[in-house]
Amino acid sequence: MAFSPALTRLIDALRVLPGVGNKTAQRMAFYLLQRDTAGGRQLAAAIEYALEHIRHCSQCRMFTERELCAICANERRDAAQVCVVESPADVMAIEQHTDYRGRYFVLMGHLSPIDGIGPEELGLEILRDRLTGNAVQELILATGATVEGEATAQYEAEMARTAGARVSRIAHGVPVGGELEYVDAGTLTQAFSGRRPL
Amino acid sequence: MAFSPALTRLIDALRVLPGVGNKTAQRMAFYLLQRDTAGGRQLAAAIEYALEHIRHCSQCRMFTERELCAICANERRDAAQVCVVESPADVMAIEQHTDYRGRYFVLMGHLSPIDGIGPEELGLEILRDRLTGNAVQELILATGATVEGEATAQYEAEMARTAGARVSRIAHGVPVGGELEYVDAGTLTQAFSGRRPL
Repeated sequence: MAFSPALTRLIDALRVLPGVGNKTAQRMAFYLLQRDTAGGRQLAAAIEYALEHIRHCSQCRMFTERELCAICANERRDAAQVCVVESPADVMAIEQHTDYRGRYFVLMGHLSPIDGIGPEELGLEILRDRLTGNAVQELILATGATVEGEATAQYEAEMARTAGARVSRIAHGVPVGGELEYVDAGTLTQAFSGRRPL
Repeated sequence: MAFSPALTRLIDALRVLPGVGNKTAQRMAFYLLQRDTAGGRQLAAAIEYALEHIRHCSQCRMFTERELCAICANERRDAAQVCVVESPADVMAIEQHTDYRGRYFVLMGHLSPIDGIGPEELGLEILRDRLTGNAVQELILATGATVEGEATAQYEAEMARTAGARVSRIAHGVPVGGELEYVDAGTLTQAFSGRRPL
């Protein structure tokens, strides 16, 4: 005895979502069928529309349904600065919390040879084209402070140097409000080696 | 600056799923767009198909795309016994772990006046019809061991008595493998009041 074919198919389909196992998928399926059929229909339509229309911005690889994303299409954003991030969520975080007014380049991941993710998968040839176009004066590397993020940053730094652009890496150190005694060893080491004269 | 309209719509739509907040919805949207467009298309199709075709079994309210669910359509299942449960997942659990061969009635919830869920929302008039049809000899109440589950069980017990059917409640007590000292007060009280002569 199992669930009906359509229900089984729905539960299995929900399991493609990251972080959703069998129990969660069951709960989601029951919820959609029992409590929110309108929401379910909207979800199906939104997924279809998104998969049909959303693509990568041709300049920065951000998700967009146009040729250029809103930032790349905005002439008032400084094209001389390009900030490299790993994910669209990083762009949102920087936009919300800083006054950065340059452009972005969204890798949609990081170099990870073991997962088959090399420079091509990250669209780095697009970034190379932008760098050799000479409009970019500074490349700001804001990839994650992980082994993969650092390796990715190294690779891009090399590209920028070859193209004659300045390169910088966002600062890593003790978070604002963080207490020294609770900061991990790697962060504390970074905070010391990256100390600045006052 | 926000995500593009289609991406915003997708993220908002994913938030209808139970347990999915904004961050999780973002992660799911990026995942579908970046890593599993095929899975996304299947998910959209599965939701649409399910919402279009799945309905309640006319006898037991289980989700099914037919008039009768697989259990109600199975002539070899004993129609004299009906087990009342709160959710389709409960049916699966009983089917997998017990040798019960009777029928079911799936409430899809429990009585909860504060949420506007009364006897009608639980389809109890269908159960009443089955009880007065005289085919049912025993109603087994397997609703949850919660205040709402108990209230729901009381209501159905009354219905069964009116219709002249026997009523039983599944046993509540110390779980098999459970150690007495770690069992909560309510369960231990139940275990004592429900003790059986050997």
